[in-house]
Amino acid sequence: MHDDLARSLGRLSQLALDFARLDEETPVRPILDPDGGAERLALALPEQGLDIDTVLDKLAQLLHATPSTSGRRFFNQLFAGRDPAATVADMLASLANNSMYTYKVAGPMVLVENLLVKEMGALAGFDDPEGVFTPGGSLSNLAALLCARNGAVPMARETGVDGRPLRVYSSAEAHYSIRKGLGMLGMGRDNLVSIACDTEGQMSPTALDAAIAADKAAGLTPVMINATAGTTVQGAFDPIDAIADVAEKHGVWLHVDGAFGGTLLLSERQRPKLAGLSRADSFTWDAHKMMGVPLICSVILVRQRGLLTRLLNESASYLFQGDTDLHNPGTRSLQCGRRNDVLKLWAAWQYHGRAGYAARVEHQLALANALADRVEAADDFTLTRRPASLNVCFVLNDKPADIICTQLNERGLAMVGHGTVDGQMIIRAAVVNPNLEEADLDELLRSIREVGDTL
Amino acid sequence: MHDDLARSLGRLSQLALDFARLDEETPVRPILDPDGGAERLALALPEQGLDIDTVLDKLAQLLHATPSTSGRRFFNQLFAGRDPAATVADMLASLANNSMYTYKVAGPMVLVENLLVKEMGALAGFDDPEGVFTPGGSLSNLAALLCARNGAVPMARETGVDGRPLRVYSSAEAHYSIRKGLGMLGMGRDNLVSIACDTEGQMSPTALDAAIAADKAAGLTPVMINATAGTTVQGAFDPIDAIADVAEKHGVWLHVDGAFGGTLLLSERQRPKLAGLSRADSFTWDAHKMMGVPLICSVILVRQRGLLTRLLNESASYLFQGDTDLHNPGTRSLQCGRRNDVLKLWAAWQYHGRAGYAARVEHQLALANALADRVEAADDFTLTRRPASLNVCFVLNDKPADIICTQLNERGLAMVGHGTVDGQMIIRAAVVNPNLEEADLDELLRSIREVGDTL
Repeated sequence: MHDDLARSLGRLSQLALDFARLDEETPVRPILDPDGGAERLALALPEQGLDIDTVLDKLAQLLHATPSTSGRRFFNQLFAGRDPAATVADMLASLANNSMYTYKVAGPMVLVENLLVKEMGALAGFDDPEGVFTPGGSLSNLAALLCARNGAVPMARETGVDGRPLRVYSSAEAHYSIRKGLGMLGMGRDNLVSIACDTEGQMSPTALDAAIAADKAAGLTPVMINATAGTTVQGAFDPIDAIADVAEKHGVWLHVDGAFGGTLLLSERQRPKLAGLSRADSFTWDAHKMMGVPLICSVILVRQRGLLTRLLNESASYLFQGDTDLHNPGTRSLQCGRRNDVLKLWAAWQYHGRAGYAARVEHQLALANALADRVEAADDFTLTRRPASLNVCFVLNDKPADIICTQLNERGLAMVGHGTVDGQMIIRAAVVNPNLEEADLDELLRSIREVGDTL
Repeated sequence: MHDDLARSLGRLSQLALDFARLDEETPVRPILDPDGGAERLALALPEQGLDIDTVLDKLAQLLHATPSTSGRRFFNQLFAGRDPAATVADMLASLANNSMYTYKVAGPMVLVENLLVKEMGALAGFDDPEGVFTPGGSLSNLAALLCARNGAVPMARETGVDGRPLRVYSSAEAHYSIRKGLGMLGMGRDNLVSIACDTEGQMSPTALDAAIAADKAAGLTPVMINATAGTTVQGAFDPIDAIADVAEKHGVWLHVDGAFGGTLLLSERQRPKLAGLSRADSFTWDAHKMMGVPLICSVILVRQRGLLTRLLNESASYLFQGDTDLHNPGTRSLQCGRRNDVLKLWAAWQYHGRAGYAARVEHQLALANALADRVEAADDFTLTRRPASLNVCFVLNDKPADIICTQLNERGLAMVGHGTVDGQMIIRAAVVNPNLEEADLDELLRSIREVGDTL
């Protein structure tokens, strides 16, 4: 082995342990001013190379100046924490460096992907699903939109979109990737119909039905309904079963974006929140969110096997030189070369088991509810509504949520984001890290009050 | 720190060293039969979780059964080798787990991305480029196609593609992602015009000019020319400067797909192969190929700053809560959540320096030429043509290239792919791993003869 490779791999454990320990000592790192930050960290790309130890030292210095997403003060995003099995598996995937397009170069890693597709599809209630891992929920949703579009305009792949308005229905609380996807796929963002939500942040099936009926009457072509399982800000679950009735009535593709909430399928108790999912045509599920594996790990599942391959396969004799399409995932992917994003999920699933994951999800939900309870019980806080998943939305009465979040970060107290619910700006604390304890929730509220007192 | 995390990170160095050593002992692993392979490797997802050491042991077992892409017998793809700095950096990126959409959660990693965009853009000759890393060359090319499409149909993002034929020109030797992208973006694969190549596998500017003129005369809308710097099979460089003349004459977007060959920009001696690149509108460059960093590391660069942001940004107040667009790369990305794919390239650049990379590229080219020399000198081999980059295409006279490649793999001798040049099936050996020695090239040819003798 190359001496420098042996040296760098040999130092890896210590580098990793030192870095992981930092989350305990400095769970919120000082903010680096982006102006001049590159100079202060000496990031410039050199003309002459440095020795391996110097590079590793610089790497450690850079990492130590990077925001922590795994510590006990991170509530900012729909991902958090550090899984012992998934993290090491993902690191080893970088080391092995197999491109996930063919069985020839990825071998059993393809079997791992297919196994996960089958298992996750079964949890969604799809009998014989087709699926592929993509680089994120936005691109999983894009693949779904592509399937729906080409269902409505069968010649779209060969001759293009023909200019007729192709309408997509999604709730006002849905993720922006649906709108973005319409812009990308030639359907036009103006053709996104924003459906009103009820008071719980769930898409209204009645409003949906009316919107589709109106479009049909106007001669427009309904293409896809996007229902969300776990909305970005509130964590709400759209009523999939009632929405599936509307989809069936009008003959429209039903996609469920479970990027965040899909993980609730792992718990028998929580699964009813996605009732009706088995009637959907496609489903997005991100494992890098609630399942706690490192970024990115997203799967697009379609109920009808063969559809993704039909819409995405290209003849490429230099690449696909043997084995069936089933074992060459490049034939159903948006990408050509693909990183191995499945090993980490496989390892995490071995470590937790399905039952362990169910308990973990319950524990995460209990933490979110514990935070909601504290907010509800306090006079100076107002809970926006009871959490349906891990998002806890609330305000510190009469204090601006955005300034509180900024100052929490600037003072090194916590990282939390804000959002808008019913026109009001709210603090959104995502309680995704399963290693949090109730004391961490108290500490978060204490920090918010500390900041609020100065405003 | 969680005990299991300490345990798994503590075992990491040994796991990595053991795995890397395997490439020396078994550079071509036995092929696992996909039928029943999942059972033989006990891949099934358990109901109850396993202890961390058992998971790590299973992980090692799985990795040991996975094809090697870093050993001395891997000539199958346009990536190979294992960089001491980039590999460890990528592993640490998994550990740090920052999503690359905002400065708030990725901090200095955004500065790293911007620095690389600026430096790679400067090498391309772009004065003030905009760019973003994407999950692969196919998606970088898709972003370019999106820019070109919306330049030709400015309202495409809002109202959709209107049905008029939007024509794209690409050589018969170009990568399939261009065709695939047309299918995705609503432009239709039928609107890809395949331009003939000359005898060196380079797109003919004369044929290109004629094709665009004919389309214009027929009332069709020319949208984009795709020139390739380093074609997939032959490694040919299209004559960018002459193609830029055609693009300018007709007012058509010029994209250069340098996924493979972009790396030649790092060497002053090789840079002329991409002469004219500074006149292009967009450029794809994959660092996970010739620059040897782990998958995936691809950048899309556009000459006109602001364009990607204009076409890809979505208002998302829950996410973009401060800092400028420049420091929130999610505003110009195809993705929402994004893995950190830049740390590895930054680390590799620190380790090699620009000058070291130039020498490395020269060395890789010298290895490819050394293989070509051997083939040319041998009576029983025929070289297809002198390599322009690292692809060496040849035949063992009167023996079928596909069967030879299959048997090389089955017998554990080498992994090599085949392709088609001028209607003839050829062996394509990609000499990408810079750690190869001339003896490895002799061994490859010896193995091919050994297999050929039995056919």
